[in-house]
Amino acid sequence: MSAQSSSTGRFPTAVYGERLRRAAELTAAAGLDALLITPGPDLRYLLGSRADSFERLTCLVVPADGSAASVVVPRLELAALGDSATAELGLSVRDWVDGVDPYALVGSLLPTPSRTAVAEAMPALHVIPLTAALGAPPVLATGVLRELRMLKDEAEIEALRRAGAAIDRVHARMGQWLRAGRTEAEVAADIAVAIVEEGHTGAEFIIVGSGPHGADPHHEVSDRVIESGDIVVIDIGGPVEPGYNSDSTRTYSLGEPSPEIAEQFAVLERAQRAAVDAVRPGVTAESVDAAARDVLAAAGLAEVFVHRTGHGIGLSVHEEPYIVAGNRIELAEGMAFSIEPGIYFRGRWGARIEDIVVVTADGCESMNLRPHGLTVLGG
Amino acid sequence: MSAQSSSTGRFPTAVYGERLRRAAELTAAAGLDALLITPGPDLRYLLGSRADSFERLTCLVVPADGSAASVVVPRLELAALGDSATAELGLSVRDWVDGVDPYALVGSLLPTPSRTAVAEAMPALHVIPLTAALGAPPVLATGVLRELRMLKDEAEIEALRRAGAAIDRVHARMGQWLRAGRTEAEVAADIAVAIVEEGHTGAEFIIVGSGPHGADPHHEVSDRVIESGDIVVIDIGGPVEPGYNSDSTRTYSLGEPSPEIAEQFAVLERAQRAAVDAVRPGVTAESVDAAARDVLAAAGLAEVFVHRTGHGIGLSVHEEPYIVAGNRIELAEGMAFSIEPGIYFRGRWGARIEDIVVVTADGCESMNLRPHGLTVLGG
Repeated sequence: MSAQSSSTGRFPTAVYGERLRRAAELTAAAGLDALLITPGPDLRYLLGSRADSFERLTCLVVPADGSAASVVVPRLELAALGDSATAELGLSVRDWVDGVDPYALVGSLLPTPSRTAVAEAMPALHVIPLTAALGAPPVLATGVLRELRMLKDEAEIEALRRAGAAIDRVHARMGQWLRAGRTEAEVAADIAVAIVEEGHTGAEFIIVGSGPHGADPHHEVSDRVIESGDIVVIDIGGPVEPGYNSDSTRTYSLGEPSPEIAEQFAVLERAQRAAVDAVRPGVTAESVDAAARDVLAAAGLAEVFVHRTGHGIGLSVHEEPYIVAGNRIELAEGMAFSIEPGIYFRGRWGARIEDIVVVTADGCESMNLRPHGLTVLGG
Repeated sequence: MSAQSSSTGRFPTAVYGERLRRAAELTAAAGLDALLITPGPDLRYLLGSRADSFERLTCLVVPADGSAASVVVPRLELAALGDSATAELGLSVRDWVDGVDPYALVGSLLPTPSRTAVAEAMPALHVIPLTAALGAPPVLATGVLRELRMLKDEAEIEALRRAGAAIDRVHARMGQWLRAGRTEAEVAADIAVAIVEEGHTGAEFIIVGSGPHGADPHHEVSDRVIESGDIVVIDIGGPVEPGYNSDSTRTYSLGEPSPEIAEQFAVLERAQRAAVDAVRPGVTAESVDAAARDVLAAAGLAEVFVHRTGHGIGLSVHEEPYIVAGNRIELAEGMAFSIEPGIYFRGRWGARIEDIVVVTADGCESMNLRPHGLTVLGG
């Protein structure tokens, strides 16, 4: 039982009908015969299903010719489709029992050989026998679904706003928990409770990077005791119904920061602002990355910004578009992603500022509204 | 941050060295060039790593020729290997930064084309570009790792014993929470806390199937209010350090059961016992399934036993061997699996009895020692 399993939140059925129709169109446009989607964020996107499975195949089959989609599902797991739009959309449900070959069942719904696109999350356990049953290697559905999933509609943006406001409320309470003398793990445990109290269905990730740990962008938590004078990176988030994620980082100082740290942090703040200001329809993802990087480089801090500027967000915490050098995708209204430059001084301290933004007609709207500055808490 | 992320439990380093050596041997015996293992239970088995990743490739490369294994890992996620045996085994760590092609990096470690076996859990996101980089489609590592992962050593069996004892303690406390007037979800929330209190690192799954919900083997929980007279199926489990799972089902009656129910449950109890008694080295998995099925069939209950008799368990809740018709694998000392026949009367009630057993030299040892009968709780 996951934290979310007893809830039934999804959008109205017509939303999923339209998404399936568009997905079939895009599959046809890509010259493919069908889209094959196993449980994960793509299945949640297309069907509102939070079904979870592993060794027994559950698979949405979307034919490119516009004929009705089917769901292949173990009879034992039929109930897991109950919350989804499957029944209201009148999809054909092909249930199977132990002993039946579910890959052959998928194959029987399609021409042979079939050119298909499969969900990124489909495990090799299913990819490899499906390849055999279909008589042709699949491609990733990423290309087919990219446009659909990247461009958030108003209901999705509203969910991201609710997620952003919820995580902002957690950051606003940080002074309740973040104090010298406590361990990172103790602070994280309090944050986990608050993430749920403030409206998330669960805590998806919690980074409490204090002092030298702040210099590791992917540090999670440890038993390190936070000290007076520490700079502390807090990067937290989780989903709100119906499954859209928050992700926001703020950096805290336990006591007044040294002038050197304050100065370097001010550069980071300008870099994050420059990237946000660079966002508008028609500019490339890489140009937004460059906007942050250029500000840091001008201050001699290029070397200590060791990761990309951001990642798309929605039903997945990390999805397209990635805000990274080399990604020439043009931003468009409705895209949602993080802007999160950071500076990392190995063995000493680190800092990061992260907001989720959604591209608007002439710029972007931030889902996170907390102040960006180094928040000083009583050391 | 998962519930388990701050712990560091793993076996001594030499255990992983020996597992890697055997895995390379088995890979060579299968006529393959290398084993490619991404995060998941196989990586935990081979390296003691609980690394978790998605869009950035982390991959253990085990050459079949016995040369040193390598770990390809995003530089940002290097720290996640810290708890594993990677460093102590002196494995070559090939870290990569955003912008580098990690699939080409894997390819550069191997001959081209390479015949490889990939972990079942590897997502299509990685399977498909790896296939392109290697110049040949991979097979599943299941065949290569089956024997290794199925045959538990004494330390693994001891972990399964601890897991079994922990979940037995939760069942022993069921009367504290399971009462008429409460919802299934309320009972499940209490069970979730107890699962951790009794020594698990988290609750992996909780089924509270009351009254008619008990007739759905994969029902999880709902807001149904449990009533006096209900039969309630409780199927619960989770991991204990270093990652081995419990999984045990008992059936409860809120008040004295009717004579008909008591009689049918008694048949189920005999069926479960017959399957346990059938377990010994050299018999087939399907014969154990048949042992339970035959008892139920003799009582006219064949039709209401709608699933396989069991599944292997270890680092995964469901793994090989599956105790199912058609599986002619011969059981061997050290294999661990569930024995869990059930009877399901749609719209009325259901029951299941599940123990985890480990095959011994002349039979099996049960990890679960709670009484099998229908436990009557005050209605």
